[in-house]
Formats: sequence, C-alpha cells, structure tokens
Amino acid sequence: MTTRDRRRRVTIADVARHAGVSTTAVSKVLRSAYGVSPAMRERVRAAIDELGYRPHAAARAMRGRTYTIGVLLPDLRNPFFPDILDGLYGHLAATDYQVIIVTGGPDAKTETRAIDALVDRQVDGMLLVAPRVPRARLEEVAGGPPTVVLGPHEKSAVYDAVLDDDEIGAELVVRHLIGLGHRRIAHIGQREGTRGRAAAMLHTIRAVTYERVMREHGLEDEIAVALTSYSEEGGYRGARELLGRSPRPTAIFAGADLAAFGALTALHEAGLAVPADMSLAGYDNTRLAALSDISLTSVDQDGGVMGRTAGRLLLERIEGRTSSVHFSVTPTLVPRRSTAPPPPG
Amino acid sequence: MTTRDRRRRVTIADVARHAGVSTTAVSKVLRSAYGVSPAMRERVRAAIDELGYRPHAAARAMRGRTYTIGVLLPDLRNPFFPDILDGLYGHLAATDYQVIIVTGGPDAKTETRAIDALVDRQVDGMLLVAPRVPRARLEEVAGGPPTVVLGPHEKSAVYDAVLDDDEIGAELVVRHLIGLGHRRIAHIGQREGTRGRAAAMLHTIRAVTYERVMREHGLEDEIAVALTSYSEEGGYRGARELLGRSPRPTAIFAGADLAAFGALTALHEAGLAVPADMSLAGYDNTRLAALSDISLTSVDQDGGVMGRTAGRLLLERIEGRTSSVHFSVTPTLVPRRSTAPPPPG
Repeated sequence: MTTRDRRRRVTIADVARHAGVSTTAVSKVLRSAYGVSPAMRERVRAAIDELGYRPHAAARAMRGRTYTIGVLLPDLRNPFFPDILDGLYGHLAATDYQVIIVTGGPDAKTETRAIDALVDRQVDGMLLVAPRVPRARLEEVAGGPPTVVLGPHEKSAVYDAVLDDDEIGAELVVRHLIGLGHRRIAHIGQREGTRGRAAAMLHTIRAVTYERVMREHGLEDEIAVALTSYSEEGGYRGARELLGRSPRPTAIFAGADLAAFGALTALHEAGLAVPADMSLAGYDNTRLAALSDISLTSVDQDGGVMGRTAGRLLLERIEGRTSSVHFSVTPTLVPRRSTAPPPPG
Repeated sequence: MTTRDRRRRVTIADVARHAGVSTTAVSKVLRSAYGVSPAMRERVRAAIDELGYRPHAAARAMRGRTYTIGVLLPDLRNPFFPDILDGLYGHLAATDYQVIIVTGGPDAKTETRAIDALVDRQVDGMLLVAPRVPRARLEEVAGGPPTVVLGPHEKSAVYDAVLDDDEIGAELVVRHLIGLGHRRIAHIGQREGTRGRAAAMLHTIRAVTYERVMREHGLEDEIAVALTSYSEEGGYRGARELLGRSPRPTAIFAGADLAAFGALTALHEAGLAVPADMSLAGYDNTRLAALSDISLTSVDQDGGVMGRTAGRLLLERIEGRTSSVHFSVTPTLVPRRSTAPPPPG
C-alpha cells in the first residue's frame, strides 16, 4: 500500500528535478517526441524508474493521449502473428506506448465489436491485421485513431497499408513445385468471408496467382482448389477433400503454414508419406515449419519487418503525418524437405 | 458517416421500446445480471443488433463499468494460451464483455508495466496467466479490479486461483517413463525469474516433483536438470546441455510442449531419432503435439476448462462475490509415439 501511495504522489516535476532537466524535456521523452538525445532519454527514464512514476495515467490527463496502441488479430493460434507483434514491440520498446490486443473472432460481426472495443478504449493508434470488415468500415474507423492495416492489398487515403507481395510469394511456391516436376498441384485456400473486396484479400491473391501460374504452364486442367480456412482444422478438411480426387494430386500448396500442419495430419491418416508420396508447401515460414520433424517448405514474408514498420508508421501518424503510406515486403522461398520430385508413374 | 451518426443517437430507451421491454430489463441484459430469461436476452440482443446500439460506451457511462476483461499472457507463442482464451471467450460470449490482452514481456519489470496498463485502462476484471511479479504486488493489484490468477499454487484472500495440479501431471510423466524402463531421465525446466515465491510457481513444482519421483524410485544419481525457459529456444538449449552429459540420458521430460519442440530440433541436429534413441515428453497437450509427425507424449491440463472457469469466477466477483475461490484441474497423461522403451544397452 505504501508503494501505491508513494507512486500516486510522484509528479512530472519530481521526475524533472530528480533527473536535473526541465519538465518540458520530461514531457518530450514521455511522448517520444523527436529531438531528444539518447542521453537525455536515458536520464529521464532512470529517474522515472527510481521514483516509480507512472507516466501513462498522468500523461493521458496531461496530453489527451492514452499511450496505447490497439492491435486486432484474427486469432491467437496462427504462429505468424507473434512474429509481427515482436517487430511492433521492438519498435515501441523505447517509447511509453503499451500494446493491447483484441481478437476478431469467427466473423465480421464479432470483428466489428472487437474494433469498436479498441476505439471505445481510446487507443492512440490501431494496427488491424488481416481485417474482414468492409473497406468502407475501415475508412470510417481510420477517421478516428491513426490506423495501419496489415494484409489487404488496398490503397487508402486515410490509413497506411503494410503488406506482403502475395503474388510473388505464391508464384515462388508454384514455380518451385513445377520445377520439381509436379503437374497435379492442388491449393488449400481460405473461403471468402467478406463482401465486395475479395480481390484485395491476401488469401484471394494467393489462390488467384496459383491458378494463373498453373495456366501459364499449360496446367489449367490440373487446377484443384479446396477453400476452407487458414487454420489447422481448415488444412485438415482441405487435404481430405483434395485426397478424394482421382487422380490424386502429387503436391499441395497450403496458403498458410498453419493449414499445412492440419494437412499433414490428414496425409498421415491416409497413409501418405511427405514428400515421398506427396509434396507439401506452406506460407509464412513460421518457426514450427523449421522443426526438423516437419521441415516444411514455406514463404518467408518477414513478419518482424512488417511489425516494426507498422509501429513506425503509427507513431508518425500520431505525431501528425496525414499522407498515406503503402509499404510492401518482397517475400522469399525457403525450400525444405517437405517438397521433392513427384513419385514415379 | 450516416451509420456512425445514427449509431450515436441510439439510446437504451430506443432499445427498450424496440424490444418491447422496460429499460431496466435492457440494463439487466447489458450487465449480464442474474434473473434474465433466455427469451428476454434474445429479444434485447436482437433489438441491439437491429438498431446498431453500442452498449459498451453507453453502459460504461451509465454504470461505471467498461465491460472489459483484461488478460495478461506471458507471451503469444505458447500454443497452450489460446486454449485458455478459447475457454474464456466461450464463457463471455453471451455477455457484453470484451477481452483485451497484454503480454508480460521478458521480465518482471515489463510485466509490471503491462499489468499497470490494464489497471489504467480501467478493466472490470483481470485474468493474470502465470504472472512473475511478487505475490505482494499481485495482492495490491487485486485490491483494484477483481482478479483471477492462473498458474501459481498460491491461496489468497483477495484473488481467485485457477490452476493445474502440476504435481500429479509431472508424476504421471516421470512414472510413465520409468514404467517404460528408462532410468536416465532428464528434465528441462524454467529458470526462476521471481524472488521469494519459487515454491509456488508451476515450473518449480514440475521440476521438484520430477526429482522427488526419481528419488522414490532409487534414481537419485540419474537426476539431470537443465534450467532454461518454456520456449522453443529454451528447449533447444536445454536439450543441447543434457546431450553433453556422459552417459547421455535416454529420455527427456520437457516442462512444456513448446520446450519439447525446441528439444526435437536439438535431438535431430545431434542425429538422434525419437523415440528409438531418445524418448521425449512434454506438458500442455497442445494441438501441435498431436500432429502425427511430432506425436508427442504430453500432459493434458484442459486449458478450455481453466479459461471457462476463470471467466465464471471473474463475472461472479464483478457481481459482488468477495470470498476467494481456489480451483484445481487434475491433469491426465496422453501417451503418444515420442515415448518408448530405451534402446538396448
């Protein structure tokens, strides 16, 4: 209790006195403004720590800011999302911003509620990862707190976009499989859950690119797509569907590593070995894809860079930038043991 | 914009009129009070949806509540945590509560900041998963919003505790390995990061139980513990350390599935096959443990039940319960292909 009482009494003036700097300087450090030297930041931070000053609540009252970045994630299971957040945390580590996370839930309705919850909590900025709500709603939301949207291939005048070049990524995978000698290459994608913006969604782009590359190689008759979801369960159902075809595909490109993990289970239940009977590739290059028991060929879109960039763009917007930025990462292929030439015959 | 303006004008009285009920009834549904019939809830919810009423902000002003549950997770990588959250979401689905998540970061200092951030955001209740801050700090925090602490084996008069019986869980694993004929059984644990409450931490209990069961079977000379962390990287380093011993262990019990995944990589790099050369078991029974390429023997502590229970206890406390509850889940062993008798010799 004493600690709490003492904390309550510490003011920005105490911090300034303790650090031997002006209150303006402390305030600058608190709002992570430009033009603060690393030495100054260090001194003020040391004083804050020693006195147990809680900058959030005080700064909020003082500057009308909450020092909160709200993040929407579709779910907490896709191991790619923590890569994005590690990048974001890394960029915010030297600031007083805290991150709060909400999950979008099963449909656009629950996602709308989750985004509303961030707005109601008066966050200073929002990072929306792969949102499903209509674009008009995104623009309306971004009229409030500064917003970065990660995933959809959309340009907007009111929010910044951070994305992976999914066309290049999908092309890399399909060409890799064709190069290994596969012709019956199937795809597990995500069923469209949004209206009116399908073409901009990353899962649509991966699926459409798969079909385009197949056609470019004269393989239009071999196109086979199972639309489920980018989840383990979706990958499992997708692979089961594709295995029912005759003749069976010799390779599967799953639109996300998580779906590839689910596909693995279905392949094993069917008594098929990877890659001897079936090649399998994913997307996201999650850490688990690198596990030697899985060793999944995948596409690396560098979530860390995407998260760091999103953090930088948000702080810039909070500081007043009003122009919109469009940042695209060029992905690379990481070939592993899960892909090999097709079985003979 | 029209949507937004329209939304702003909808009041609780509009909802009551539209649903044909009293404003008191609407208010009861909004705060998920007892004594509301399912039919009444259904009617009010339909009216809320049709009118686009946003209960959070309005209810907050009206009742001094934010309809927010704050959750602290140590990190977003451990695939066990989403199981807990699915349980929590399931319990809250029929209410107006939204969940916001913060992560504890690398140490007790960043964790303190994260918990402060929840308190500053005026959450109505908090679920703290495996917190590392000292118990005194937890009790201080729980003096504010109603709090449930998940993980540590501590009883408190001010917060509720939800936990897994880690002693039974660890015993199940070690006895299983001994039953298969192993003697040189090693353990990968988590290095203590907290002061003054080591004995209550779940990772300590798993490690201490491992040593006790080894001694009870006359295997005290075979005890080998690597203390790193419950992460992939920690499991990797732990396994490397244990492989340096001579003679080498024939089985490893990793305190968490995530650490077991990291250990798998180290074993493969060393050219060892699981389970032919080395048995491996984890803890948490994550979905990935069930993947047939991994097929990891693990302990199921039913995160869904823990999360649902935490949600129920939080709502009870928000409604006024002041007595403290201690809820323990009895875990079960899920044997899979990663454990087998030791190699001959």
